[in-house]
Amino acid sequence: MSKFKLAMIVALCAAVVVPAFTRTPQAPASSSAASAPDPKLPDSKLPDPKLPDPKLPDAKLVEDLVYANRILSDQVVVDAFGHVSERDDKDPNRFLLARSVAPALVTKADILEFDRNGEPIDARGRAVYLERFIHAAIYRARPDVKAIVHSHSPAVIPFGVTGTILRPIYHMSAFLGAGAPVFEIRNGAGMTNMMITDNKLGDALAKSLGDGTVVLMRGHGSVAVGDSILQVVHRAIYTEVNARLQAEAARLGSINFLTPEEAAKADAQTDSMASISRPWELWKSRIGKID
Amino acid sequence: MSKFKLAMIVALCAAVVVPAFTRTPQAPASSSAASAPDPKLPDSKLPDPKLPDPKLPDAKLVEDLVYANRILSDQVVVDAFGHVSERDDKDPNRFLLARSVAPALVTKADILEFDRNGEPIDARGRAVYLERFIHAAIYRARPDVKAIVHSHSPAVIPFGVTGTILRPIYHMSAFLGAGAPVFEIRNGAGMTNMMITDNKLGDALAKSLGDGTVVLMRGHGSVAVGDSILQVVHRAIYTEVNARLQAEAARLGSINFLTPEEAAKADAQTDSMASISRPWELWKSRIGKID
Amino acid sequence: MSKFKLAMIVALCAAVVVPAFTRTPQAPASSSAASAPDPKLPDSKLPDPKLPDPKLPDAKLVEDLVYANRILSDQVVVDAFGHVSERDDKDPNRFLLARSVAPALVTKADILEFDRNGEPIDARGRAVYLERFIHAAIYRARPDVKAIVHSHSPAVIPFGVTGTILRPIYHMSAFLGAGAPVFEIRNGAGMTNMMITDNKLGDALAKSLGDGTVVLMRGHGSVAVGDSILQVVHRAIYTEVNARLQAEAARLGSINFLTPEEAAKADAQTDSMASISRPWELWKSRIGKID
Amino acid sequence: MSKFKLAMIVALCAAVVVPAFTRTPQAPASSSAASAPDPKLPDSKLPDPKLPDPKLPDAKLVEDLVYANRILSDQVVVDAFGHVSERDDKDPNRFLLARSVAPALVTKADILEFDRNGEPIDARGRAVYLERFIHAAIYRARPDVKAIVHSHSPAVIPFGVTGTILRPIYHMSAFLGAGAPVFEIRNGAGMTNMMITDNKLGDALAKSLGDGTVVLMRGHGSVAVGDSILQVVHRAIYTEVNARLQAEAARLGSINFLTPEEAAKADAQTDSMASISRPWELWKSRIGKID
Repeated sequence: MSKFKLAMIVALCAAVVVPAFTRTPQAPASSSAASAPDPKLPDSKLPDPKLPDPKLPDAKLVEDLVYANRILSDQVVVDAFGHVSERDDKDPNRFLLARSVAPALVTKADILEFDRNGEPIDARGRAVYLERFIHAAIYRARPDVKAIVHSHSPAVIPFGVTGTILRPIYHMSAFLGAGAPVFEIRNGAGMTNMMITDNKLGDALAKSLGDGTVVLMRGHGSVAVGDSILQVVHRAIYTEVNARLQAEAARLGSINFLTPEEAAKADAQTDSMASISRPWELWKSRIGKID
Repeated sequence: MSKFKLAMIVALCAAVVVPAFTRTPQAPASSSAASAPDPKLPDSKLPDPKLPDPKLPDAKLVEDLVYANRILSDQVVVDAFGHVSERDDKDPNRFLLARSVAPALVTKADILEFDRNGEPIDARGRAVYLERFIHAAIYRARPDVKAIVHSHSPAVIPFGVTGTILRPIYHMSAFLGAGAPVFEIRNGAGMTNMMITDNKLGDALAKSLGDGTVVLMRGHGSVAVGDSILQVVHRAIYTEVNARLQAEAARLGSINFLTPEEAAKADAQTDSMASISRPWELWKSRIGKID
Repeated sequence: MSKFKLAMIVALCAAVVVPAFTRTPQAPASSSAASAPDPKLPDSKLPDPKLPDPKLPDAKLVEDLVYANRILSDQVVVDAFGHVSERDDKDPNRFLLARSVAPALVTKADILEFDRNGEPIDARGRAVYLERFIHAAIYRARPDVKAIVHSHSPAVIPFGVTGTILRPIYHMSAFLGAGAPVFEIRNGAGMTNMMITDNKLGDALAKSLGDGTVVLMRGHGSVAVGDSILQVVHRAIYTEVNARLQAEAARLGSINFLTPEEAAKADAQTDSMASISRPWELWKSRIGKID
Repeated sequence: MSKFKLAMIVALCAAVVVPAFTRTPQAPASSSAASAPDPKLPDSKLPDPKLPDPKLPDAKLVEDLVYANRILSDQVVVDAFGHVSERDDKDPNRFLLARSVAPALVTKADILEFDRNGEPIDARGRAVYLERFIHAAIYRARPDVKAIVHSHSPAVIPFGVTGTILRPIYHMSAFLGAGAPVFEIRNGAGMTNMMITDNKLGDALAKSLGDGTVVLMRGHGSVAVGDSILQVVHRAIYTEVNARLQAEAARLGSINFLTPEEAAKADAQTDSMASISRPWELWKSRIGKID
């Protein structure tokens, strides 16, 4: 019997005795990244099974999100910081995101659901990421976006602070198109702590992203978006690779980038599900089984 | 009893009950990289044993090709993309290449045979690499070539887009001779998706390679060729190492490269079977047993 | 029963039969880094339990110090050289530091206690670090400092010898404020062996540090300080990361650093216990159990 | 009972039944690096025990040489190429060096003895390194030298081809003194294959080294020498580290190197047995048990 089938049966049985998971929006949880995460909390499975509610996000979605967290850490896109989210397949006004914990340590039990304003539906006492508004704002602004990665991936940082545009140096990062825009938090908000800690700052960031695939954040990091968890992981990783290659090339001479037309044609191939499935399987094989 | 002898006996026994492996060229398989790889396909061993056919490629050849895939991944020449092929030792019009899968995950059962036009003899339902025409075209143009690596190895990319010539900085990469040429796909084909997806593009690439050992591809990657799987793996790895060293040296000052005469003399030594056997054994020892 | 409770009970029982650990300052131990470490010495646990003395440093403090040693090695801030210390929580005139050994190999039994002049209270025959005066001098000058890291972390070295100021390129290294000062040993001491081998040199270094968080040492390395072992480890690691990113960015163009005001605001967030607990748990998870 | 005592007893017992190891110089072995290494040869232990001969090299010497091989590979100073040798403690006209094999794979049974002309005393059918004359020539020219490393360590290569002098950027590489000389093989030998394949070329290289600690070889690699296996491993590793740091610093600005006086004073400390024992124990701990 497949692991998924087994999990489904366990979930259905558990539903009889487990208290209902109420999906009614609640007041914002009082917990925040300012309170230390408590690893001793019981591992209540999310989605918490509740038979009458057909809107629970797919179990495969949760599993892929856990893999995405681990893969982004293994591929050095995130360290202890950075996060990846996924739009709820049943309710487009909600998204899934881990509690405040290093991506390498995320398990299924750490995945929480958030509403369109970035507040947890039920934080279950867990601390949540301070910058969850990055995700909320972009999901509001971009209905086509199904998954988002925010990171401080190292090779990208220099492009955010020097005015050098990050552009596609080869076919694998053709999704960068004519180049990634840079979000300057000073423009709207003056002197800040550099972080996206509310919806207003989130909206400003989403505006900088526009209809693009990647936006850099000056003195902070970057955000990649995609139409699936596979695509956004692929984009976050090759954004970092492109930055590494472009910085190297810039020292050798003037760079002959993909033209916008080449980028569009290459993107249709390298960014397709067929193409991104190959690295996804490789990256997953390096992670092994997850909880 | 050695593993090879055992494998041979098993193969001969199996030949009695396994349907014949037809070597008659077939219509191009409908499968392509555009269809997702199916890891659940049965692991039918290739070469499929068929007693009356003395033209089956050597089992050692298949094993070495699997090692080459794993080594190139372990040595960071390929990531999830890139591929390595080998000319069939029994039929020079054919070559061996894995199905569409990340090189790190290649097993013997993934090795398929292709004809001189880059079409699979029998894809057995597997998806095949979109850019198999790189291999087909070079095997057609260069009878001396027995093995080919195509990769996006990172340090080489900047040399393909800046006009800086990749030249031998030390004896280990003497095979670069007077420097590697760069293939500009725009010259013949205008705005493309940057990939070698048919024989016409393959022929243009082979023409850029000429009688050389390595050709760079602008905005894409590179190709190395050799007279054996050991030599081509050696060349692909030291092409990447040379690129890394040359980029570093270029920042320190003007580089005193090997002269063409030094390169020719050093190549006779460092590119010989005696010399390349030493790293091959080391690289294999890092991979361990293969399936 | 928790490991800590168990350890406490074992410690109390052992106190009945183990000879008393005298805390009376002693003459400086004759052993120094010049005598080779003796790994065969009995693993007498420190702090040596002595019931009547309530001033023994907390067991958790010792454990965290061992983790700090291993983490700094795992994160490539220290190699075989470099050291991390912690002020004694019971006696602010004393600090804890390992015997002379590579940080990656430090165990609880290697932790020694030193007085305000940098002399071991009881070296138990162990060789001690030649440069323990770095720690002693800073603990004397900065009552707010609870933990210190000295390292030769690689990306920081170039900033100490070129006059380029190390400044915060992003929020994670906001603790660098307006930039790290550089200690020039030649100024006070002329031609030396570059090392801080006595209290006078230590005082000069502490003066260069001033009320800062990090000071570079020309032709040698750097020192980071913090108000806890977690904070100083966090700062030592992100000092190295910032150096790497700043060096890369400097090659791309003029850098838009965090302004001092942005740095102060970001520091209040990224340098807080809530924020630094997340990477600490990740880094510890990579080390596993310690002795 | 210690491993060494046990090994000594086994060696003495074996001496009764094992044929004598003749130390009479023999004609140069016909085998060379040009013949592929045969891993199937019996693992006859070297030194082969022979009771009446008190001149056999110390077993600890052989063990340290094996560790040196593995450490240099683990620390990325050598890849499949490069070698480390040690002068025989009983006969200064002889030295120990592995058969032609990748350093990472060297075992005690691979260690051979060579005479002052670089010829194996008894190759036992093994292929030997083509460039063993590097070692022979330096042992002849420099009685103070007890151990030698030849490598193509990557960060050093650019300094050999650009005219930028490798100089001590910090105390850990103070042994570089006023800077490492560069050997230009063209000066005496014109166009060659870049390799030191005879004693005449070896003598020219030894002359370039002079009374120094490290000499670079243009378009090839470098050689480090020391008064012990620990010291030469330490120097080979920190030569590579210094090259990495110096190249980085050169991009940030003009470098304030250690003055020759600072280098001499620092060297007395950082190059001492007390100092180099610490990393040696760390590096050994990463290798584990050896054969």
